[in-house]
Amino acid sequence: MSKLRSTITMSLDGFVAGPNQSLGDPLGIGGEQLHQWLFPLRAFRESHGEAGGEVNASTPVAEGILGGTGATIMGRNMFGGGPGGWGDQSWQGWWGDDPPYHHPVFVLTSHPREPLELQGGTTFYFVTDGIESALEQARVAAGEQDVSLGGGANAVQQYLAAGLLDELLISVVPIFLGGGARLFDNLGDPVPELEQVEAIDAPGVTHIRFVTTRRGG
Amino acid sequence: MSKLRSTITMSLDGFVAGPNQSLGDPLGIGGEQLHQWLFPLRAFRESHGEAGGEVNASTPVAEGILGGTGATIMGRNMFGGGPGGWGDQSWQGWWGDDPPYHHPVFVLTSHPREPLELQGGTTFYFVTDGIESALEQARVAAGEQDVSLGGGANAVQQYLAAGLLDELLISVVPIFLGGGARLFDNLGDPVPELEQVEAIDAPGVTHIRFVTTRRGG
Repeated sequence: MSKLRSTITMSLDGFVAGPNQSLGDPLGIGGEQLHQWLFPLRAFRESHGEAGGEVNASTPVAEGILGGTGATIMGRNMFGGGPGGWGDQSWQGWWGDDPPYHHPVFVLTSHPREPLELQGGTTFYFVTDGIESALEQARVAAGEQDVSLGGGANAVQQYLAAGLLDELLISVVPIFLGGGARLFDNLGDPVPELEQVEAIDAPGVTHIRFVTTRRGG
Repeated sequence: MSKLRSTITMSLDGFVAGPNQSLGDPLGIGGEQLHQWLFPLRAFRESHGEAGGEVNASTPVAEGILGGTGATIMGRNMFGGGPGGWGDQSWQGWWGDDPPYHHPVFVLTSHPREPLELQGGTTFYFVTDGIESALEQARVAAGEQDVSLGGGANAVQQYLAAGLLDELLISVVPIFLGGGARLFDNLGDPVPELEQVEAIDAPGVTHIRFVTTRRGG
């Protein structure tokens, strides 16, 4: 069966977004510092249609974030346009007309909405009946490929606590956000058990890859 | 001038001790899992008078925890026997008659006590007039060597927030403690700025070394 894996960047004090997230500041105060390791990379720039860029020890991680995955799951907060109902449904996510997913994306929400088909193969499906349903649908959509769990913190916590996450890659950046969305919280009892697979020393970031060895929940 | 450096082990969810620390459970519930990377090492066993043990990628880190340092600073909680006054002064720390420090150790406390000289060159001095005074005394004692900041969380936070810590090595272990003493909290405003120097992939642990580039406080 295809795996569910998540790649997420965390500050040294444990946050994946800073305080006071808003439409103008989707990653909260200071949160834009989180992904400074990613933006200069050729692998990232190419996926956004831009030329040039660096190749370094982070390149395989950047390539792996979406590479080899056939579907993505994300929380409502990561898709944005909330909280609450969808209003006039004009919100189409943060990524413009041609999002960098190029496969089906399943958004966890309690507010029903019709599927949203954008360019380049990305269609957003809005799943209102829970994380297991979203995973089941994503696995069907992904076929032989893995499913990527995009974030944010709450979605990762739910899948981790439920014992449904297979692999986790944390990119630890040496910044302090001091508040915001804490990644490892509400993990249930007993807590999940992870095994470290590898750590990668890259410019301005340490990537640590884990597999789950005992499921939480 | 000699540097102040700290080496401390942190769970993936950010704790350096688990919940409910007590005399019988000095690292709190689950906290004994934190240092499993350290105990099997020959470098650790030798420093505790035991033969045998492993040599792996953690060995230089274990050797560096006390190697090359001429004095140690620690918080009262790490020395133990508290909280509160010293009573009959029978508490001599967690380490027996011959502690593994072999140099002067300065304990941050608000309760005065005469110096405590144990075997093997370790004398504990109890400093009641603040972190800067302790650092000044430790620097004098260390001479040309560096000063080690042992912990716990509160002591590291105070030196980091005051801009007095030069180097920090965090050993990240893939466990969740779910509560306890959080390392990176109360860091002041502006928060300290760190630069990643290196990351070391070792069995069951990732060591990340940082230097401070802008001082907090």
